[in-house]
Amino acid sequence: MFRIGFGIDFHQLVEGRQLWIGGVNIPHHKGALGHSDADVLLHAICDALLGALALGDIGIHFPNTDLAYKDIDSKILLQHTYTLIKAKNYKVVNVDSSICLEAPKIKKYSGEMRKVIAAILEITEEDVSVKATTTEQMGFVGREEGLVAYANVLLQKS
Amino acid sequence: MFRIGFGIDFHQLVEGRQLWIGGVNIPHHKGALGHSDADVLLHAICDALLGALALGDIGIHFPNTDLAYKDIDSKILLQHTYTLIKAKNYKVVNVDSSICLEAPKIKKYSGEMRKVIAAILEITEEDVSVKATTTEQMGFVGREEGLVAYANVLLQKS
Amino acid sequence: MFRIGFGIDFHQLVEGRQLWIGGVNIPHHKGALGHSDADVLLHAICDALLGALALGDIGIHFPNTDLAYKDIDSKILLQHTYTLIKAKNYKVVNVDSSICLEAPKIKKYSGEMRKVIAAILEITEEDVSVKATTTEQMGFVGREEGLVAYANVLLQKS
Repeated sequence: MFRIGFGIDFHQLVEGRQLWIGGVNIPHHKGALGHSDADVLLHAICDALLGALALGDIGIHFPNTDLAYKDIDSKILLQHTYTLIKAKNYKVVNVDSSICLEAPKIKKYSGEMRKVIAAILEITEEDVSVKATTTEQMGFVGREEGLVAYANVLLQKS
Repeated sequence: MFRIGFGIDFHQLVEGRQLWIGGVNIPHHKGALGHSDADVLLHAICDALLGALALGDIGIHFPNTDLAYKDIDSKILLQHTYTLIKAKNYKVVNVDSSICLEAPKIKKYSGEMRKVIAAILEITEEDVSVKATTTEQMGFVGREEGLVAYANVLLQKS
Repeated sequence: MFRIGFGIDFHQLVEGRQLWIGGVNIPHHKGALGHSDADVLLHAICDALLGALALGDIGIHFPNTDLAYKDIDSKILLQHTYTLIKAKNYKVVNVDSSICLEAPKIKKYSGEMRKVIAAILEITEEDVSVKATTTEQMGFVGREEGLVAYANVLLQKS
């Protein structure tokens, strides 16, 4: 049996924060604002995994009012989410994702992101896609006020 | 045989309207503007179902110029859409959805929404996911001018 | 074996450009700005196909700095993308897509778009869905500054 999941996540970009995307630290003069490390891509993937099995969302599992998750590495959140998927006897078939941001260019980091995500989800890098696009200078992403990530997952019962 | 579908829907939030999301009436000082009850989540799910079988979109099936649909309960639209899916001998495997809105908090209503949607689509609540996120104060959702819903569905030939 | 893919694409709408969507030329006083013919729908579908098999993204395969792709017909880009999918022994099960734009109305062109896309991907028009929605006058799409397309694809190993 198969299931599909979808996730979307938003974060503001501000001075004085580190920029973490897909578990990778990216040099930039701004970083994503959030209670955790604000990794927009890992959050979107968490939500897609949870959504595929109707297990709630990232805000329910990791509330941004809980000090346990303050500045937490989102790889830990993805790892925890994956244990919930495994506990339901599902495995990940593939993950496809898109990051919308104006700057910086992140293409050269996508290989490393795929490696990080694949390792956590116990799949190969060929099963994880990380794409990137600008919004052509339009909207809050275009004004470099923030960034958005979308993720789709396909799960299969083991 | 499987098919995937995707839906997205937008509505303005204005004073003097009721707020219906996922077939549930949510107390709030604003409601969604539209020709029908403007239920952004049910509309996105309708579009995902129609899209999976290439049956057009909600604007074709339920035109906002048709008085028959004025202020209509969107549960009726979802019910009608589902009869089109069944007529093609497909059943719903699972639905995953995300609602983007700044306020109010709707987490406590998601269980009821899932119940409503599952009943119409003849699946269990474990097959329906309703997630929610803010856009971190960014854009028209962040300014509470409107809300957006995304839905993904997986269908299987009966 | 199945795989899912997701694509999103953005373009500005400006005077003095032709408007190409889904391989169809649409009469309008504005067109989409871009290095190629800026066909937002075909680009989103390309990205969904590439993403499903983790083959990178449209920016990697068809860089907007490469003169070979200047003003190119995006049907050629979709054709090339599809050869990559076939080379991996995958076929397309179905494509669902949504175009967000305020004007013009494009419903009457969706049949022709489906025909174009189906021919390139070697599937029938019943396997290709093209939906359209406004953003209810909100955001950059609502102000007619630009348009957005979303695409989801389901692939199956041959």
